[in-house]
Amino acid sequence: MGRWEPNSHGRLQRAALELYAEHGFEATTAAQIAARAGLSERTFFRHFADKREVLFGGTDALTTRLVAAVAGAPASEGVTAVARRAALTAAEFIGAAPREMVRDRRDVIATSPELRERDLAKIALVATALAAALTERGVSEALALVAADVVVSVLRVGLDQWLANPASPSLPQAVLAVWDEVRPSLG
Amino acid sequence: MGRWEPNSHGRLQRAALELYAEHGFEATTAAQIAARAGLSERTFFRHFADKREVLFGGTDALTTRLVAAVAGAPASEGVTAVARRAALTAAEFIGAAPREMVRDRRDVIATSPELRERDLAKIALVATALAAALTERGVSEALALVAADVVVSVLRVGLDQWLANPASPSLPQAVLAVWDEVRPSLG
Repeated sequence: MGRWEPNSHGRLQRAALELYAEHGFEATTAAQIAARAGLSERTFFRHFADKREVLFGGTDALTTRLVAAVAGAPASEGVTAVARRAALTAAEFIGAAPREMVRDRRDVIATSPELRERDLAKIALVATALAAALTERGVSEALALVAADVVVSVLRVGLDQWLANPASPSLPQAVLAVWDEVRPSLG
Repeated sequence: MGRWEPNSHGRLQRAALELYAEHGFEATTAAQIAARAGLSERTFFRHFADKREVLFGGTDALTTRLVAAVAGAPASEGVTAVARRAALTAAEFIGAAPREMVRDRRDVIATSPELRERDLAKIALVATALAAALTERGVSEALALVAADVVVSVLRVGLDQWLANPASPSLPQAVLAVWDEVRPSLG
């Protein structure tokens, strides 16, 4: 899920997620997505390598943000504070998209074992990059790997809580609420 | 990875992992596995639905153990102690197999994106079951999900450290060492 921008990329993304939610991922074609977005199929393929890229294309940008957030954190910050910062950064990135797009993306992935496995693989790559950024700060490899998994876990739980509760204000706030709830019990 | 037992099941498992490590997962046939184990192909298929089942067939038994360990933990134990108990239970289960089998299994999975994605999906199922067992104890859903992810994470890191260091005594000790290293920094 990339940062939401109401340009061709974002219009195609929204159209794709709507169609995946309405008709299923398999049944939707690139031509249909382009038509819904009022753009050409050629434009679709300028923005996305394939239909799956709409779902997972944002992962690289998310990873870049996370690594930058960790690298840019004050040297005085310990691993817990930096991990919290990473969770917040990811929540801000994902939460920049409209809630219904985030929800459609999650729900479409849940419909397909293949998409779920791909999603888990992408998440694992994000966690690995995050762990590497933490070790760059001098955190031990073991702690970096576990802390990165905690970030990913808190993000996922916060995202589900945010989507489950229409009254919840924002994804970053939902993620931080989970963080603050679980942190005292983990140590 | 199932508990190691030097019976037909275990012999087939060891033969399969050896062959996957030597020739690759794709290139290995059920007939070759059976021949290496000194058993018939029919016997192979009595024990395993297919070649992949050799790698992932132990996950259900592991899940059963974990859920039982959590359910059987003293009512007085908090989520951190129960999570530690779960990590230890999983380490004892996996570590009952010879180290070279655990290593071959990990290395074979690492060679194939498809096997990696399947492994992540299986691990996610284990974590979901573990989280459900924690919520049965009255742990909040958010905390249960994150604690289960921490257990899985510590297990994976401990397993890699155990395999990387031939001098490390046992998988349970390696996992507990990681647990004790990371725990103070997470809370």
